[in-house]
Amino acid sequence: MRIVGIDPGYAIVGFGVVEFTNNAFTPLEFGVSLTQAHTDFNERLVSIYDDISFLLDKYNPDCLAIERLYFNTNQKTAINVAQARGVLLLAAKQKRVEIFEYTPLQVKQAVTGHGTAQKHQVMEMTRRLLHLSDVPKPDDAADALAIAICHAYNAKRANLGKMRF
Amino acid sequence: MRIVGIDPGYAIVGFGVVEFTNNAFTPLEFGVSLTQAHTDFNERLVSIYDDISFLLDKYNPDCLAIERLYFNTNQKTAINVAQARGVLLLAAKQKRVEIFEYTPLQVKQAVTGHGTAQKHQVMEMTRRLLHLSDVPKPDDAADALAIAICHAYNAKRANLGKMRF
Repeated sequence: MRIVGIDPGYAIVGFGVVEFTNNAFTPLEFGVSLTQAHTDFNERLVSIYDDISFLLDKYNPDCLAIERLYFNTNQKTAINVAQARGVLLLAAKQKRVEIFEYTPLQVKQAVTGHGTAQKHQVMEMTRRLLHLSDVPKPDDAADALAIAICHAYNAKRANLGKMRF
Repeated sequence: MRIVGIDPGYAIVGFGVVEFTNNAFTPLEFGVSLTQAHTDFNERLVSIYDDISFLLDKYNPDCLAIERLYFNTNQKTAINVAQARGVLLLAAKQKRVEIFEYTPLQVKQAVTGHGTAQKHQVMEMTRRLLHLSDVPKPDDAADALAIAICHAYNAKRANLGKMRF
């Protein structure tokens, strides 16, 4: 199963592409799609859409796993993240890639086995599971890979019907 | 100047297309794009994107005016409206349509001349300015037309540089 993990945002979108076969992971690519602060916001949406579309075309994944959004006190940032996330979901759905979403707690639990894990523990487990020599950088890419791992384990548990949205 | 006004949403997107020439309006089309509640949310995003893209292709407007988002207490609805709004902005930007956003207060002021106007007053003025025999229905379409009128008057005041985002 080929999975694209996405850490949504509008300044930085983290992505991680992994292959999960026989209970083992192979990382294919990870990184970030960046848009510049001085750029017109709508132009940033186009750039995000183009980048994710290119990635999906390149890897033709079975599914996309993306972090669920929760709003904090900064309304403007929250609105813009949600607007960018809508564009990411659109690109995946247009290409008939199945979409799954997970909370940060679910990601922690899946990757480390416990929901109270510290961020550095999640990153270290992500590194190990992907057989990487170093913790993936930047953090947004590492988060995206962790989300992909989370989906792989959840998909394996085979109760996919309940998790689809 | 040809303007598409948009009242953003994910269940109902209101739209109104108007021509503004020599200080007078001609309504070209108004209505709503609907998505069904039982539909997968991401499929709804695709439907919204397809509908707005079709509308923009059909009318080739100079600009799109859309209501600014403010979040209320229902986080889930707010996130979904923002995600749908991102898709609307993407479609417009991809087609090189200029995008402008207005608050509900700005719309009221532009259409009726005062920001304390009641909704029915805004609708009645929208009807009159567009030379319609009845108040446009449904409300989402009327709101979209009011947003288009708001942009027409603001654009006329010619300080567009400040309002672009």
